[in-house]
Amino acid sequence: MATVKLWTDEEVSLHPRIKAVFDDIRATRKSDFVNNFWRALANEPALLERTWSSIKAVMIEPGALDPITKELIYIAVSTVNSCSYCVHSHTAAARAKGISDLQYSEFLAVVRMASETNALATALQVPVDPEFDAS
Amino acid sequence: MATVKLWTDEEVSLHPRIKAVFDDIRATRKSDFVNNFWRALANEPALLERTWSSIKAVMIEPGALDPITKELIYIAVSTVNSCSYCVHSHTAAARAKGISDLQYSEFLAVVRMASETNALATALQVPVDPEFDAS
Amino acid sequence: MATVKLWTDEEVSLHPRIKAVFDDIRATRKSDFVNNFWRALANEPALLERTWSSIKAVMIEPGALDPITKELIYIAVSTVNSCSYCVHSHTAAARAKGISDLQYSEFLAVVRMASETNALATALQVPVDPEFDAS
Amino acid sequence: MATVKLWTDEEVSLHPRIKAVFDDIRATRKSDFVNNFWRALANEPALLERTWSSIKAVMIEPGALDPITKELIYIAVSTVNSCSYCVHSHTAAARAKGISDLQYSEFLAVVRMASETNALATALQVPVDPEFDAS
Amino acid sequence: MATVKLWTDEEVSLHPRIKAVFDDIRATRKSDFVNNFWRALANEPALLERTWSSIKAVMIEPGALDPITKELIYIAVSTVNSCSYCVHSHTAAARAKGISDLQYSEFLAVVRMASETNALATALQVPVDPEFDAS
Amino acid sequence: MATVKLWTDEEVSLHPRIKAVFDDIRATRKSDFVNNFWRALANEPALLERTWSSIKAVMIEPGALDPITKELIYIAVSTVNSCSYCVHSHTAAARAKGISDLQYSEFLAVVRMASETNALATALQVPVDPEFDAS
Repeated sequence: MATVKLWTDEEVSLHPRIKAVFDDIRATRKSDFVNNFWRALANEPALLERTWSSIKAVMIEPGALDPITKELIYIAVSTVNSCSYCVHSHTAAARAKGISDLQYSEFLAVVRMASETNALATALQVPVDPEFDAS
Repeated sequence: MATVKLWTDEEVSLHPRIKAVFDDIRATRKSDFVNNFWRALANEPALLERTWSSIKAVMIEPGALDPITKELIYIAVSTVNSCSYCVHSHTAAARAKGISDLQYSEFLAVVRMASETNALATALQVPVDPEFDAS
Repeated sequence: MATVKLWTDEEVSLHPRIKAVFDDIRATRKSDFVNNFWRALANEPALLERTWSSIKAVMIEPGALDPITKELIYIAVSTVNSCSYCVHSHTAAARAKGISDLQYSEFLAVVRMASETNALATALQVPVDPEFDAS
Repeated sequence: MATVKLWTDEEVSLHPRIKAVFDDIRATRKSDFVNNFWRALANEPALLERTWSSIKAVMIEPGALDPITKELIYIAVSTVNSCSYCVHSHTAAARAKGISDLQYSEFLAVVRMASETNALATALQVPVDPEFDAS
Repeated sequence: MATVKLWTDEEVSLHPRIKAVFDDIRATRKSDFVNNFWRALANEPALLERTWSSIKAVMIEPGALDPITKELIYIAVSTVNSCSYCVHSHTAAARAKGISDLQYSEFLAVVRMASETNALATALQVPVDPEFDAS
Repeated sequence: MATVKLWTDEEVSLHPRIKAVFDDIRATRKSDFVNNFWRALANEPALLERTWSSIKAVMIEPGALDPITKELIYIAVSTVNSCSYCVHSHTAAARAKGISDLQYSEFLAVVRMASETNALATALQVPVDPEFDAS
């Protein structure tokens, strides 16, 4: 189920603006598979273009953080936001990028640790130490 | 303000169980500064011991993820949980561990990207592709 | 799946207190369809009455905000709370009330924008400007 | 407190790239006041430019939703994300754009209503009715 | 800071509808202290009346759950919602109702435990066992 | 669907470290049923051991809070975190431990009440009264 239509390849092929994005997704990822997120965003061509162009710049182009680190940050955010779709798709992406079992284990340990200390710091309403101020 | 008392060094010095943890925090971090999170947890000695021992194992001992990557995952979780204390303390920790300006910029870009696509995937209720199933 | 029983029309017909609410839902909405939310709440008659009466007053009776605006605020809250049921039901409600494609596009753009700037303001722990204080 | 430096006007004046954005904020809003969010983002010039350009397109340029509706959606998202800064700044923005007391009252009523029904739907794990599927 | 005015006792005394609620708060709690939540809600008399009447019915009138259990559930919700105000006010309420140090310790342990297993179940996207279905 | 493999009893039987935990779960709960959460955690033996040992200490061993109260706090946290799995499994646990219909009704009422007042306190950004400070 979804709140919008999921575009099939046949429907996409009839809309050049949408097809251009799908073509670029396939070329960039060197894979014919286009996942449902893009098939849902196809209902909003401007948002589709903007989001793909942003994902490409942030997640795919080389930078100071390696690709696996970026996926782990993405999964961490998606986990706390309870975004089932995003947890699934970016865990698959981390695997496709070669994350090791040990790295994934440590990732889970950090997320677990942060979740519990977040809850404790909020329950206790710990005041921020002035030493942490960078303003 | 806080919902519990924040223990001063003088009060800590009178409780050997709590003092042992504070001593280990100082020795492990090679710094005299003990931040408010531990001063608040001092009200719960068992929780204090458990949390410090867990933080040491997860965040300080060497592993498959480097220390800066672990801090970034921690800040990502804390940001989505709106834990003001944790964002402040772990951003300071990332800086102390030598995060570069470029790494921090890219971290912000990934968090921003994940936050917006999480919202979109949830608003559109995109169904998870069977390709992502690992069960 | 659900954590409680979903009441069928036949079961509802045997309980006058619950039936009265279902009858009013049908009469108010001029539709025979009663969605699962009410079939789940039927396990708690007092909560069922209170929630329906509140929904009717807040969402259905005319006021200073038009019905589509109220649905959009509802979907925004439900999206951030990751309430899959509520996103689905209120997106359907917005459509039933005549939301245009352009309005829905702009809604998604605002939700995306707010989600990313929320994450940035929290990650940077931006202090509130005194100019915003209304107390 | 903040996790980053807040740029003063004097510091901004020495960096043409940042100054250009601040000048455009002032010109667009017809006000000399530049709030702390932008002073924090000034540490990340690319993010500053991208965010301001996006805010201008989404929140300021005329569209299918009126400016007050867009602010209300923004405040709704920010409230659920517990973004103190964003709630303050966008409530001030809604006031500056002329929201009436009655509109604000109804906004609070919808947010309250959505928050409580979100919690109920999640606690009861109500299954989505097939009637709501638009895929 | 706040996004609305906080009403002083003098201002309240001039508005009979608001004064009636404040009088009932004081009489019910047998205390002259009226906390800021009600002083903020005073801007919305209908919401003030509704919320106080609801709080009285749910939190103060005797029922199947004892008063401390109800406060702990309230603090748990408020902690995960990062509602600083609510964590502070309901932790104070739990203390005023006589929560023991041991009860509070166990409460923190359950919140910590739930927070970490929630994160794990979401990161792993564990499918709900059919045995848990009650529908 | 899940992001990891769910271990069958047959697979578990071949790994003594994992089998020891599953045996203890069955013995402690006096039931042959082992739910999916543990079958997913089996991929991470250290995390499996740690989590089960922690759950046993916090949720099963007798303490100052009765077992039903602890389950209710757990469900409250899980509801706000939108952890579908955890809401399902701990509501089933509360039922298995003998929660009455009236207790569950009141639980829902408190969660509803807290959710709505959390949203109001955050939307109004009510400042914490100095009277609530325990530091």
